[in-house]
Amino acid sequence: MSQLPILVVGSVAIDDVETPSGHRPESLGGSANYFSVSASMFAPVRLVGVVGDDFPESHVDALAQRGIDLDGLERVDGKTFRWKGRYASEGADAETLDTQLNVFETFQPKIPEQHKDTPIVFLGNIHPMLQVDVLDQIDAPRFSAADTMNFWIQGEREALKSMIRRLDMLIINETEASLLAEEGNIYDAADVIRGMGPRVLVIKRGAYGAIIFHPEGLFTVPAYPLRKVVDPTGAGDSFAAGFMGSLAEQGAFGFAALKRAAIYGTVMASFACEGFSMDGVISLERSKVEARADQLRQMIAL
Amino acid sequence: MSQLPILVVGSVAIDDVETPSGHRPESLGGSANYFSVSASMFAPVRLVGVVGDDFPESHVDALAQRGIDLDGLERVDGKTFRWKGRYASEGADAETLDTQLNVFETFQPKIPEQHKDTPIVFLGNIHPMLQVDVLDQIDAPRFSAADTMNFWIQGEREALKSMIRRLDMLIINETEASLLAEEGNIYDAADVIRGMGPRVLVIKRGAYGAIIFHPEGLFTVPAYPLRKVVDPTGAGDSFAAGFMGSLAEQGAFGFAALKRAAIYGTVMASFACEGFSMDGVISLERSKVEARADQLRQMIAL
Repeated sequence: MSQLPILVVGSVAIDDVETPSGHRPESLGGSANYFSVSASMFAPVRLVGVVGDDFPESHVDALAQRGIDLDGLERVDGKTFRWKGRYASEGADAETLDTQLNVFETFQPKIPEQHKDTPIVFLGNIHPMLQVDVLDQIDAPRFSAADTMNFWIQGEREALKSMIRRLDMLIINETEASLLAEEGNIYDAADVIRGMGPRVLVIKRGAYGAIIFHPEGLFTVPAYPLRKVVDPTGAGDSFAAGFMGSLAEQGAFGFAALKRAAIYGTVMASFACEGFSMDGVISLERSKVEARADQLRQMIAL
Repeated sequence: MSQLPILVVGSVAIDDVETPSGHRPESLGGSANYFSVSASMFAPVRLVGVVGDDFPESHVDALAQRGIDLDGLERVDGKTFRWKGRYASEGADAETLDTQLNVFETFQPKIPEQHKDTPIVFLGNIHPMLQVDVLDQIDAPRFSAADTMNFWIQGEREALKSMIRRLDMLIINETEASLLAEEGNIYDAADVIRGMGPRVLVIKRGAYGAIIFHPEGLFTVPAYPLRKVVDPTGAGDSFAAGFMGSLAEQGAFGFAALKRAAIYGTVMASFACEGFSMDGVISLERSKVEARADQLRQMIAL
């Protein structure tokens, strides 16, 4: 393959998810899991994470069959990270009902020797010190990006800032951006966050799309017009996956490449929302991805 | 001038507005007023409305100086329509503190004979029966559009539907669209509303831009990146004005023309938000409008 490989570190989880569309216990989830499945449609993916002995072997096989490199997936005694959440209505934020860190509590990412020169790195939403730890273990990548969440912004601000400083790109949502920047206006918030280090900032706005803040200007991508959201869990990771996957496929990281990548991020997020767990993306064909990418490009074509 | 003329009917008001940026009593407002000032930058405007004897002659002069045709502006004994409102925070909806219909209570729009063949008609937010009354008085226009508000959707649904049926285009905001269609999902709501008659629907989403629903497809325009909203009163009318003004200037009403027009609607709304009352638009230069239009086009250029 000519695409550049991507290394992702993040959580691999078993979720219990309730949405207005139904209830899915024992739902495969976690940021690295969602990211790997969607990104592997575009480029080779190397997954770094940890699971317990309760993690279904069938899913490990499914990941391997997609060509995802699992040398960095530790399997240890104990239970896999578990998250239980509920979405009260379509479009609502998740309400966390229960979190059991289990084997994730003592997780120390170890980058396999042969993966230390991976040119593209995505740090999924985990403790910012672990994200820093990953950056310490790898050679200077050509492009690095990360996600985070309110929990770390509120509780681990300094660690988070030391991580953000080293990124090429931060991908967060609008609420997180305001919280991180302590600025209500999204454009002011973007200035503050870019002042923290990353050259590029992507702010996700859910059903309203996303904005790329780049030294050369702004780019806005609309959300894909979805009639129904079955389960938004993993939408953010799938967005990052389509985005980073497209960059890896393009082998380019300039403003034009980032714009094209934002289209694919949006498409992958839309598919992720249409099913519980990985249902929307696990057996997705590339032709369907391209059809939605075309639709999105039409939606902004003057 | 080669641009087509636009006839607008709506309110002309004296507002009392409080926002986090300050308080402006005796603030010139009203849908027809806001619309006329912004649209007159693009095309000749014919205003139909009513004011009382308290309406400042200086503002009538200012409208006339912009070339706005005031043959349809009735001046009657009594007080001008007055609205008092407050915006609790930036981005919040207005809270109406007081409404005095005054001379507006018995307003019956009378279209001057020489304006009955105006090719472009915009029905600002007034009672839907008055909007219908205007459509009855004019020859079939080349392009007609209207705005409305929650108050009429809730209280005058049937009258409103009989008006909407006759339009080429309805421009409403996201909340109004859901209320009118009785559908939470914006794409489902758009289907329902377009089923009521108008070939084109524009749904405004405030700081998130707007969507055009057209038989040939969707077009999304981002909001102009504003750092500060001083007073959002009239932003919707200014959006409609830039939109309709651009159509009049283009003399075209196809999907491509509508897309270009949405850019100008967005730009005029942005300027309207930057000052109290008409401050942001009354002495605006076209070059500043074009600069923002260029910026918006860049924000969606792949």
